[in-house]
Amino acid sequence: MSELVPQVMSQLPARVVMGECWARDGLQNEATVVPTAEKVELISGMVDAGFTKIEATSFAHPKYLPQFADAEAVLAQIPRREGVHYRGICTTPRAVERAIASKEQGFGVDEIVFVLSASEAHNQANVGMTHVENQRALEEMAKRAIDTGHEVFGWVLCSFGCPIQGDVPVPDVIRLGKWWKDVGATYLGFGDTTGVANPKQVSRFYSELLSAGVPKDDVVVHFHDTRGWGVANTLTALQFGFRYYDSSLGAIGGQPKTGAADYHRGFTGNTCTEDLVGMLHEMGVETGIDLSKMLALGARAEQVLNRRLRSNYLLAGPVPHHGIVYDKKLGIVSSSAPAGVTTQPRN
Amino acid sequence: MSELVPQVMSQLPARVVMGECWARDGLQNEATVVPTAEKVELISGMVDAGFTKIEATSFAHPKYLPQFADAEAVLAQIPRREGVHYRGICTTPRAVERAIASKEQGFGVDEIVFVLSASEAHNQANVGMTHVENQRALEEMAKRAIDTGHEVFGWVLCSFGCPIQGDVPVPDVIRLGKWWKDVGATYLGFGDTTGVANPKQVSRFYSELLSAGVPKDDVVVHFHDTRGWGVANTLTALQFGFRYYDSSLGAIGGQPKTGAADYHRGFTGNTCTEDLVGMLHEMGVETGIDLSKMLALGARAEQVLNRRLRSNYLLAGPVPHHGIVYDKKLGIVSSSAPAGVTTQPRN
Repeated sequence: MSELVPQVMSQLPARVVMGECWARDGLQNEATVVPTAEKVELISGMVDAGFTKIEATSFAHPKYLPQFADAEAVLAQIPRREGVHYRGICTTPRAVERAIASKEQGFGVDEIVFVLSASEAHNQANVGMTHVENQRALEEMAKRAIDTGHEVFGWVLCSFGCPIQGDVPVPDVIRLGKWWKDVGATYLGFGDTTGVANPKQVSRFYSELLSAGVPKDDVVVHFHDTRGWGVANTLTALQFGFRYYDSSLGAIGGQPKTGAADYHRGFTGNTCTEDLVGMLHEMGVETGIDLSKMLALGARAEQVLNRRLRSNYLLAGPVPHHGIVYDKKLGIVSSSAPAGVTTQPRN
Repeated sequence: MSELVPQVMSQLPARVVMGECWARDGLQNEATVVPTAEKVELISGMVDAGFTKIEATSFAHPKYLPQFADAEAVLAQIPRREGVHYRGICTTPRAVERAIASKEQGFGVDEIVFVLSASEAHNQANVGMTHVENQRALEEMAKRAIDTGHEVFGWVLCSFGCPIQGDVPVPDVIRLGKWWKDVGATYLGFGDTTGVANPKQVSRFYSELLSAGVPKDDVVVHFHDTRGWGVANTLTALQFGFRYYDSSLGAIGGQPKTGAADYHRGFTGNTCTEDLVGMLHEMGVETGIDLSKMLALGARAEQVLNRRLRSNYLLAGPVPHHGIVYDKKLGIVSSSAPAGVTTQPRN
């Protein structure tokens, strides 16, 4: 009588690493420059909550991104702890030299992030270079980064579709990912830059990527929640067993400015840290993150930006069986278990 | 060199049916009573956009739910079209008699929805009856409904966890689902009433449900987005090949009031129709719904409730390759394809 039952979610990873992007990707398009002390406070809180990969700042020229004029000041003040890796993004050789100088002064980043667009059109709009020009420049920059003791994190932006060119053939995207490996990248990101990827497409992409021999552990999964599909796309990646996931407190950030302004409505966001980490804990996938501390951080992130951000988990509170009692209004996070409620994750 | 690649999303349904819940589940806890004319306008718009299952109203006593005091007036004015089924919810014998009277006057509902909680504690809090008492009453009500030409839609609320009792054993939930079949139900819903289900749990639940011999096509998938997991849970259900999915324009609704007020923070919601239907179209899963008309409806739903609702898709607009140009500010939805952008869903 019973129908054939598909095998679903049989290969989830037991443990994942979260990359927290609030302090860079998150803040990049915020109109208000957040004071250095508050950035340091938030990043310190992330470390305390158990995040081990933190995108801390950008070395972009302050003329273009005034939000990160304090890159060195932030890096000089955030806690250094064994196992905690900071990421910084560099788009120019000058930025790389600033990253190196920081490192020489004892407060560098561990991973330098570089970006290349999958589509030539988006690359031109984003950084004003053809693929060939940009790849030459990036090869030099990556070499400098690696030679000075950094890990390289190479992005292929618009991997799931370009707002200017439209579809980008998957083999072209994979070729650029492999090029990043040739350049010496430790980590690869395939960006859904304008939030157009869907779970079916994501599953086909990852199937092709893994079939092409790209090792699972090289890949950083980073989806945008532009159309409400961020958690679903991330769940798709989880089913392939990837182990490194990006997200941002309050789901802020998630979209660089490009010339194609009409496709960029500004109402986008990264996948939400609170919602994703909360879900992973329920699923029995370990993140190493303290849910209570994460919630307190999410609430603080809203205070710092002086508006309600986009976390649903923060608003609803954790599932009662975790025994965390959270009162957003009162700002209270305690761990008294509600009476009569079991406390085991139901995965 | 290539790693073992998991098979993910290989058994998606080619086509699904969407159940639109805005007019009942959506409006149930709205503080403002929406005028009958606006309910009729929205439901008419749903029919025009291609929705074929529409939860139209509740026959609850107006003293308890004044929002639905106009149940008969709404039903008398909404369009009747071949293949369009209306749902109405009944929790008392008196409500069933009202549904029957409507049908006799030529403007009935096609499906009558009944609810039973998986946990005894929630059932007591929700309707003040034990399981045995409630099941006896529901058997009578379901018989009346079926005898008068209605289809019965039986809910098992709190199937994924109860805010009072905590975990509910899956075999108990499945037993209640089978009881609904014995009572004559055509459709079964397993409700994540307080939005606590996670995708891993959902996949285990559906595995057990199908293994227990419950036919796939009897099941209506209906998740809440309380903690941002609604689309992810629905995606999990899609991977099992279910074909009937509930959602609500703007993600409103999604939670009955119970005695356990402290776990019900009011910041919940159904899975969002716009986000879900948009994603399904991208995935190549047919819904029969016109995206342009759906977006216009979503915008109208926000006007009617006089606030921004929770659709991300409505805010960001469709993926450009659909050729739908949507300007939320101007309220314009046109179908001119942006130049140079391909128009095939990338699934």
